[in-house]
Amino acid sequence: MQFSSILLSDAVESFSSLPGIGKKTALRLVLHLLNEDLSITEGMATKLVKMRSQIKQCHQCFNIADDDVCQICSNAKRDKSLVCVVRSIKDIIAIEETGHFYGVYHVLGNLISPIDGIGPEDIRIEELVTRVHSGEIQEIIMAISPTIEGETTIFYISKKLQDKDVSISTIARGVSFGGELEYADEITLGRSIISRVKYER
Amino acid sequence: MQFSSILLSDAVESFSSLPGIGKKTALRLVLHLLNEDLSITEGMATKLVKMRSQIKQCHQCFNIADDDVCQICSNAKRDKSLVCVVRSIKDIIAIEETGHFYGVYHVLGNLISPIDGIGPEDIRIEELVTRVHSGEIQEIIMAISPTIEGETTIFYISKKLQDKDVSISTIARGVSFGGELEYADEITLGRSIISRVKYER
Repeated sequence: MQFSSILLSDAVESFSSLPGIGKKTALRLVLHLLNEDLSITEGMATKLVKMRSQIKQCHQCFNIADDDVCQICSNAKRDKSLVCVVRSIKDIIAIEETGHFYGVYHVLGNLISPIDGIGPEDIRIEELVTRVHSGEIQEIIMAISPTIEGETTIFYISKKLQDKDVSISTIARGVSFGGELEYADEITLGRSIISRVKYER
Repeated sequence: MQFSSILLSDAVESFSSLPGIGKKTALRLVLHLLNEDLSITEGMATKLVKMRSQIKQCHQCFNIADDDVCQICSNAKRDKSLVCVVRSIKDIIAIEETGHFYGVYHVLGNLISPIDGIGPEDIRIEELVTRVHSGEIQEIIMAISPTIEGETTIFYISKKLQDKDVSISTIARGVSFGGELEYADEITLGRSIISRVKYER
């Protein structure tokens, strides 16, 4: 796609570098911004840069946070003895959306996947063990996608915590096997947290 | 959708204010930016603001331009006696893509649509007449979507130029009736420029 303006071409280029945004969609978005006030574009630019430059990682659960500790961990109403282990912050957002979880989280960052060269030391399992060591945690819910990588990760973590006095459960497999957690609908995901099953170890 | 970070929430909000971008897609885009270097986000922000604040309108054809005159109008190789009349710059981009047009353009900005309260004086017909008056233009190709509004606009313009020594053609109706020009494929659009037919007036 060729444009008679370098300014336009650059703007289209930067939108189309985003995942799932093609050239035609990027052009549509740029033309939309052209039709709107300059303040709209400036506002968007400011918010994106502010987000990217100022966002932090929660020291406790590794969720994204505006401060050193995220809003969930710093909420006095959340049950600190109940920890939901997830792969990514997308999963936190999906679970929060259900309104069925009142504990705190632990973000692994990824799942064990030997085929992709991701081992247990590449994800935040040690940090989880340290949290369990601290003694406050009584129950861990594994809200991990039921894929091979997910099952491997759950198994590894359960082995690591074998001698700890902590109950481990997995969310009920209402989520279809091989499916991605973040695309599950609220009801399925919510129910699967309520009817979690004890992990057999 | 609720987020545990105001920074994240603001960024998602600004992406999802764009047409066709929902909350889930916006979140995906923001998380993508979070995974990339800060420079990527800053580059995007700069390019968007620069585009929105510095882009101009070509004094001759009303295409978007980096300077007072667009790259097409200022190109010595383009035939200034052949003018393609289009609704919007999206149509210019689509026609340039075909590589079948070597003249210049005239952007109307919209089409006559009494139902939407858009009359002939709301679009750049007078400017086109002025350009024809200047004497350089010999042929006008109407590359207007074959909708009711498009046909009305073509008819109105042809009446306005009735006593002028200028040939008027419309692009061949390979474009499906009621279809939008910008979504036509390159081949159809290219051929319809080549096999344009003289407008019966």
